[in-house]
Amino acid sequence: MTTERRTFASDNFAGIHPDVLTAIAEANGGHATAYGADPVTAEAIRVFRQHFGETAEVFLAFNGTGANVVGLQSLLRPFEAVICAEGAHINVDECGAPERFLGSKLIAVATPDGKLTPDLVEAAAMGTGDEHHVQPRVVSITQSTEVGTCYSVDEVAAIGAWAHDRGMWLHLDGARLSNAAASLGVGLGAFGSQVGVDVLSYGGTKNGAMGAEAVVSFLPADTSSLRFIRKQSMQLASKMRFVSAQFVALLSGDLWKTNAEHANAMAQRLAAGVSQVPGIRLAYPVETNGVFAVLPSAVTAAVQREFPFYVWDEATGVVRWMASFDTTEQDVDDFVALVTQTMGEYRE
Amino acid sequence: MTTERRTFASDNFAGIHPDVLTAIAEANGGHATAYGADPVTAEAIRVFRQHFGETAEVFLAFNGTGANVVGLQSLLRPFEAVICAEGAHINVDECGAPERFLGSKLIAVATPDGKLTPDLVEAAAMGTGDEHHVQPRVVSITQSTEVGTCYSVDEVAAIGAWAHDRGMWLHLDGARLSNAAASLGVGLGAFGSQVGVDVLSYGGTKNGAMGAEAVVSFLPADTSSLRFIRKQSMQLASKMRFVSAQFVALLSGDLWKTNAEHANAMAQRLAAGVSQVPGIRLAYPVETNGVFAVLPSAVTAAVQREFPFYVWDEATGVVRWMASFDTTEQDVDDFVALVTQTMGEYRE
Amino acid sequence: MTTERRTFASDNFAGIHPDVLTAIAEANGGHATAYGADPVTAEAIRVFRQHFGETAEVFLAFNGTGANVVGLQSLLRPFEAVICAEGAHINVDECGAPERFLGSKLIAVATPDGKLTPDLVEAAAMGTGDEHHVQPRVVSITQSTEVGTCYSVDEVAAIGAWAHDRGMWLHLDGARLSNAAASLGVGLGAFGSQVGVDVLSYGGTKNGAMGAEAVVSFLPADTSSLRFIRKQSMQLASKMRFVSAQFVALLSGDLWKTNAEHANAMAQRLAAGVSQVPGIRLAYPVETNGVFAVLPSAVTAAVQREFPFYVWDEATGVVRWMASFDTTEQDVDDFVALVTQTMGEYRE
Amino acid sequence: MTTERRTFASDNFAGIHPDVLTAIAEANGGHATAYGADPVTAEAIRVFRQHFGETAEVFLAFNGTGANVVGLQSLLRPFEAVICAEGAHINVDECGAPERFLGSKLIAVATPDGKLTPDLVEAAAMGTGDEHHVQPRVVSITQSTEVGTCYSVDEVAAIGAWAHDRGMWLHLDGARLSNAAASLGVGLGAFGSQVGVDVLSYGGTKNGAMGAEAVVSFLPADTSSLRFIRKQSMQLASKMRFVSAQFVALLSGDLWKTNAEHANAMAQRLAAGVSQVPGIRLAYPVETNGVFAVLPSAVTAAVQREFPFYVWDEATGVVRWMASFDTTEQDVDDFVALVTQTMGEYRE
Repeated sequence: MTTERRTFASDNFAGIHPDVLTAIAEANGGHATAYGADPVTAEAIRVFRQHFGETAEVFLAFNGTGANVVGLQSLLRPFEAVICAEGAHINVDECGAPERFLGSKLIAVATPDGKLTPDLVEAAAMGTGDEHHVQPRVVSITQSTEVGTCYSVDEVAAIGAWAHDRGMWLHLDGARLSNAAASLGVGLGAFGSQVGVDVLSYGGTKNGAMGAEAVVSFLPADTSSLRFIRKQSMQLASKMRFVSAQFVALLSGDLWKTNAEHANAMAQRLAAGVSQVPGIRLAYPVETNGVFAVLPSAVTAAVQREFPFYVWDEATGVVRWMASFDTTEQDVDDFVALVTQTMGEYRE
Repeated sequence: MTTERRTFASDNFAGIHPDVLTAIAEANGGHATAYGADPVTAEAIRVFRQHFGETAEVFLAFNGTGANVVGLQSLLRPFEAVICAEGAHINVDECGAPERFLGSKLIAVATPDGKLTPDLVEAAAMGTGDEHHVQPRVVSITQSTEVGTCYSVDEVAAIGAWAHDRGMWLHLDGARLSNAAASLGVGLGAFGSQVGVDVLSYGGTKNGAMGAEAVVSFLPADTSSLRFIRKQSMQLASKMRFVSAQFVALLSGDLWKTNAEHANAMAQRLAAGVSQVPGIRLAYPVETNGVFAVLPSAVTAAVQREFPFYVWDEATGVVRWMASFDTTEQDVDDFVALVTQTMGEYRE
Repeated sequence: MTTERRTFASDNFAGIHPDVLTAIAEANGGHATAYGADPVTAEAIRVFRQHFGETAEVFLAFNGTGANVVGLQSLLRPFEAVICAEGAHINVDECGAPERFLGSKLIAVATPDGKLTPDLVEAAAMGTGDEHHVQPRVVSITQSTEVGTCYSVDEVAAIGAWAHDRGMWLHLDGARLSNAAASLGVGLGAFGSQVGVDVLSYGGTKNGAMGAEAVVSFLPADTSSLRFIRKQSMQLASKMRFVSAQFVALLSGDLWKTNAEHANAMAQRLAAGVSQVPGIRLAYPVETNGVFAVLPSAVTAAVQREFPFYVWDEATGVVRWMASFDTTEQDVDDFVALVTQTMGEYRE
Repeated sequence: MTTERRTFASDNFAGIHPDVLTAIAEANGGHATAYGADPVTAEAIRVFRQHFGETAEVFLAFNGTGANVVGLQSLLRPFEAVICAEGAHINVDECGAPERFLGSKLIAVATPDGKLTPDLVEAAAMGTGDEHHVQPRVVSITQSTEVGTCYSVDEVAAIGAWAHDRGMWLHLDGARLSNAAASLGVGLGAFGSQVGVDVLSYGGTKNGAMGAEAVVSFLPADTSSLRFIRKQSMQLASKMRFVSAQFVALLSGDLWKTNAEHANAMAQRLAAGVSQVPGIRLAYPVETNGVFAVLPSAVTAAVQREFPFYVWDEATGVVRWMASFDTTEQDVDDFVALVTQTMGEYRE
């Protein structure tokens, strides 16, 4: 039923990495206590702490929107606001779930490359102490960003310091944190508490899981509320061991990194290939597993007829191509060849 | 990691039925469009419609709380209220998710056996037209109920007629609808639109899935809003094909029924066994896969040391034992023997 | 336009006490800073603190529902619940505003006389620590109650101690706190922090104001959040001096007490009168300004044709008669005469 | 207690127009049915309909934030969004009440002069039909705008037509609608259903009332839900006759217009005066009762020491001066003289 060809439409179009599926199958012996009080979940939490440190509290969730909303809710009262990039997933791709469930306003900031900076955030953090205004309380960044760029460790730390100086929190949407860490050659924990991240979402799904996301909290106290927030936010799995097993597969060894490095490398190969094509321009630096390019719309349409992918910005003609853990060199080369040929026909 | 013994604690403690796991693995070839626009999901919707009719709109979700909240939200504005049984899952086991996300009040009605009736609902449906009161708009019933009882088809139809006469909707929480249908010897569709059900939650998880629930809507119009409600309610799976595959496995043949009939039969065997034990009394008729019995608390505690299970009501000493698709006759017989022996020691 | 006769339908049917109206007019000289940073509001807060102590934080609001929701919101996260009496205003007369805006469940407890007790609350405070259940966090009582009864100071203190022992808060809906205090011969401050009340709503409207309610908080810290909660909850008046002036008129001298004592006395006169009538029975002790009586429905209907009032409970035939600050002895005597005569005709 | 000097800080700093206070006093005879079923409220609705037509449904409310939230709630489901100007009161001055209570996202659009246009709205109305995006459903405009500019009747009609062509609604925040209508020489009804406005907030408070706002709905059906929305949104006054009396005073004759014309004229006088001062520049056309000027910050600070007013934009040095119904020519002339002198000293 699923013989679709591999494309560059989304890293969500890929399936389950074989090792993850095996882990699910292996977790399927006998009964296990529901809702997370099982040994597989205990093991998953243990391996998370190997990456993020012993103080990390871990709450598995179903999807990225759920993980973001649950994590943010632990940091916010409804009159407090989140400052985020205009293109942040929480701002444009979650159908308003944050506003709906947090009750909070998102203050969206235009960015040149998907990345916030202390200066950008400073300009948006207005109205503190004025009861007519929402009170800025959380800065939320995405690592890697929605346009494939990557904060350096120091850049995250600078935003963390800025936030903590003002009594604010730093939230990190890490739906593709693996890709960022692999790209920078650092561990996942490089983006934890030591750079001032207070709560993060860690995404397994785009990295080869079937569906597994996590909220990781470094708050010194009261993380117990996260248990209730997760349940009330409809993100508590009954047969949680099967979510947990996916993380054990990804995080107990190097699978998370291998998958991310491979996807990143395929994006580099793709970027290198299309960069050779006259008339095509990369819209953002290719730092992780996404390639954003500017194409003539006729070329876009022609290529889409064979390989589906998304137009990122109708107005500017930017398109998005995502590499996955299962993308092959041949996939890339075939696609580059198609783009090259189509572009050539267009320019004649 | 998961060598726990099979118990009667919950049908959520069971794992994945082998056929369901196989279906997940088979759906794992190549890429597939995310968020449900894939052939496996199309197939899942097709098999749902074989059961519930061609007018059924189907929206897969992660868990039962999510399915209930999504379905109810399609029926309610925040000043409108839900009438439900006091012991309803939405009222006592969802950490307030309905109030939180619907904004609506639940009006809880005491019942003798977990089942609402038109008379019980009538008494609770007050304040219509009075702006100081919430406006009753939905009746929500659970089939089978949280105490293992079962509405007959006519009983559901009577509540549906009552509701529609008053311009209200009927919602059905079918987390264990399979068990009810199997018990009554009817199809799943017997609890759809022809008995006045407007929206239902259908549960795959307790029936052998890894984690798969669905909202099925029979509303004549505007079900398109459910797409947005599901996404905003954090219940939209990116790699949805793997949720869908579970339903295809359960619903395309008789697996849903086989699993349910088996669990029901094991509950009957358990009920028959413990009914022989002097001093033990069944609290509710055993009509599906749950056995509710009244035990002395010392006996409860002694048995729990070997087989974990939940006390349903501390005050009355009622305990809950649930049979699963994978419960064996030997499991039942061992458990009955243990209860018999413990009770005997207690009475000496 | 407003020549309606004085009735016993509600203490909200009365108008503005002349001294309150004068205070509004006197506050109308020149300009004043909006939103409460004006001298009249400073004076109102000063007189509130004369009653409730210097640690009281005071936030004026428009109406009772608003004051209740604002106060409760300062005490609750959405997964936490409020335990209240079944007949509490927050439970049945606010169109679900608490659930809608707090996101929290109300756990309603049946009471014989509108009053909670530690035992009643204990029985309802279930599920602590269980993530599937809402977490009881606030007990809310109404003083005087919706059926005209009154907690003694010790009774409130007992509930306060119970709540604080469990890390819970005590909220008091004091829409008619003046009537209770006048009835018991104590000051308003008798129901403040020294009996364990953490946040209360104080009602001026039913006591002779045009429309003036207040949230009084005794929380040791973080009451600053109440400023934002009030604004976000749409309860911040721009020309606040005119709300404040009403409280200055009521609370700077004895007007609050005079008005309450008078209304209470008129209720006593009415209760004494109707108690003489064969076939009429008081439903609750008359302890403040409300009289609840059981009448034959034919008598109720006949009397309502001349004097409108509300049937409190259709099923039991209980009706409600409320006395106001402007009720006269003649009003009472005329009404008693009418009831007596109608009852007599009915019994012939 | 209120001997503050008249300033140009805000039209909310002014008190109650004498005729409005008289109307409140006159409404204070005897009892009246609470919550709006009284003759004064009936009269208020009648006079509203004289302005806005017989199909207008009118719901009085306490304040502008409340009126906006109630009105918008009648038009929106939580996954639907509101497009508004970046500086709209709902976006920046209501402490997030819209997001909190509607659950909906506000999509804020930068404007040169506070006014939306079909082109501006078109560019912001993205993602229709895509379940990952909120669905644009309401355009909300402010008349007159927060920077004192005014939509022409045709400009409003163009936005109304744009919205209705797309199945969207047009909401108008008319906190200062009187000033706009007076400025344009049209009736209030010019901004009703015939130009495509579906729901509007009408403000009495800034026009001389003590505190009186209204939601006016032109929806063809289901406005009955507004009764419940208003109550649940904590905006239903018990002694409503005193809110209603204010509107009767303003709207039954020409008081609304006289007050607005006067305030507008004083703003023109002020604008004319400061325009003569070298080094001062008007930031926006002065079309109603607000004057926005660019001053050196040292001048701003010096003038504020004698006459408080608000800096509108720290970055650009824009300040806001508002004229009220009670502003005198002498007030204006004194203020212009002060500004002139201070500016002169600054430039030396």
